[in-house]
Amino acid sequence: PKPESARPTKVQELYVYEINERDRGSPAYLRLSQKEVNSLGDLVPFSNKLYSGDLQKRLGITAGLCVLIQHVPEKKGDRYEAIYSFYFGDYGHISVQGAYLTYEDTYLAVTGGSGVFEGVYGTVKLQQIVFPFKLFYTFYLKGIKDLPAELVVKPVAPTPSVEPSAAARWAEPQATVPNFTN
Amino acid sequence: PKPESARPTKVQELYVYEINERDRGSPAYLRLSQKEVNSLGDLVPFSNKLYSGDLQKRLGITAGLCVLIQHVPEKKGDRYEAIYSFYFGDYGHISVQGAYLTYEDTYLAVTGGSGVFEGVYGTVKLQQIVFPFKLFYTFYLKGIKDLPAELVVKPVAPTPSVEPSAAARWAEPQATVPNFTN
Amino acid sequence: PKPESARPTKVQELYVYEINERDRGSPAYLRLSQKEVNSLGDLVPFSNKLYSGDLQKRLGITAGLCVLIQHVPEKKGDRYEAIYSFYFGDYGHISVQGAYLTYEDTYLAVTGGSGVFEGVYGTVKLQQIVFPFKLFYTFYLKGIKDLPAELVVKPVAPTPSVEPSAAARWAEPQATVPNFTN
Repeated sequence: PKPESARPTKVQELYVYEINERDRGSPAYLRLSQKEVNSLGDLVPFSNKLYSGDLQKRLGITAGLCVLIQHVPEKKGDRYEAIYSFYFGDYGHISVQGAYLTYEDTYLAVTGGSGVFEGVYGTVKLQQIVFPFKLFYTFYLKGIKDLPAELVVKPVAPTPSVEPSAAARWAEPQATVPNFTN
Repeated sequence: PKPESARPTKVQELYVYEINERDRGSPAYLRLSQKEVNSLGDLVPFSNKLYSGDLQKRLGITAGLCVLIQHVPEKKGDRYEAIYSFYFGDYGHISVQGAYLTYEDTYLAVTGGSGVFEGVYGTVKLQQIVFPFKLFYTFYLKGIKDLPAELVVKPVAPTPSVEPSAAARWAEPQATVPNFTN
Repeated sequence: PKPESARPTKVQELYVYEINERDRGSPAYLRLSQKEVNSLGDLVPFSNKLYSGDLQKRLGITAGLCVLIQHVPEKKGDRYEAIYSFYFGDYGHISVQGAYLTYEDTYLAVTGGSGVFEGVYGTVKLQQIVFPFKLFYTFYLKGIKDLPAELVVKPVAPTPSVEPSAAARWAEPQATVPNFTN
């Protein structure tokens, strides 16, 4: 048997933008509570586009489910339990779970991954830029080898006006990762 | 770069009570199967209160989704697939997944966490005390530093009559963790 | 305190078949999008039977939820986000999350487990044999001790005609794992 290598424990940061370009029919707000105000019982499947932190490359998509937990009137917002994955084309995916608050940044758990993210663990910081259309994420990843150079970028600071580059927006070949998820 | 420390592999036990005080509109039993008996197709979003194992402190909430898998008539109960998180205020959260049987104790997987639970793995034993209002959990946690002293308590033995202390029930400042999740 | 042992990092392969024998009311296709074509908003709770890779033993069941993300007309299929667990009777369970594409093999993340799978991580390859009734999985598992001998089998190559042995199909005692999940 080949020798077993230790699992890496250094932290690698990965920055991505999630942008809802209103072309995927997302989110699907299922008002199963049958109440007028957002309430426990409502479910929200969603899928948005994923770009690199420097907004120069289309990476893939997000995909998953938000479970409405609580309407928080004093914050004019909602608490969701979020269970979803980030897809990076041929590089694989990262699955996460935790709180999504529409009024405040949160940290979710990284629960696993595939491809270059096989064996990953750690957390991800979710920052809302323009509700509910633009979000910025900082992953703090452990348990994996060095990230591909293409994913290690200097992020554009998150502000409401950020937009992906035109090339990334139109998924031109030089502006996507290999076989980007669509 | 600072040296990488090994990931801790010792087991730490953490005891908590989940109590449904009927003030959160939970659970929301969504009878999407449209059958009279609980059936595959039914979904149950839920969120209850979380107390320390000694019932002296309010910690936060649980939040997530139960997927009805099977009605089990000979046990007069049901099998659910449960996907949820435990929130501990500023200490962070733990996400779990596995079976919830209304008639039997189960072990679920700890899939990740944030805050002091960043990098956590292990299992949690779910014991039902009073269906469906009181549950007792024993977490067996690995991968994290020593738990905060405030979370390391001698648990009250789980019996149907257990109740949180009045101070914890009313979330008095000395009877909560910092910024307890509500 | 007893010395802490390192977490195993060698890869162990585990082969299983998931078969829908049309006797569990599964899947429950919830057309919550209210659209004629499969669309975001649809949810699909499911539970099928689980057999060993050599089809000689009934292991248990699968249980969980598929979230319809996208209909893919050019592939005549669908993308789902899948969140589910594999149950192995007294041996415990494995939870997974990732993409299920009805037209292509995928790798999902192993997010955790219980029993002999306590502390597990890694990935699982999902291969569709007969949509949507027969699937073959190859788990690549790390973080656990050597698998029980009973689970380490030479798999039958996945072809449309594979069937569990009659003994496994009828869950005869010598053809199941201890207390197989049903």
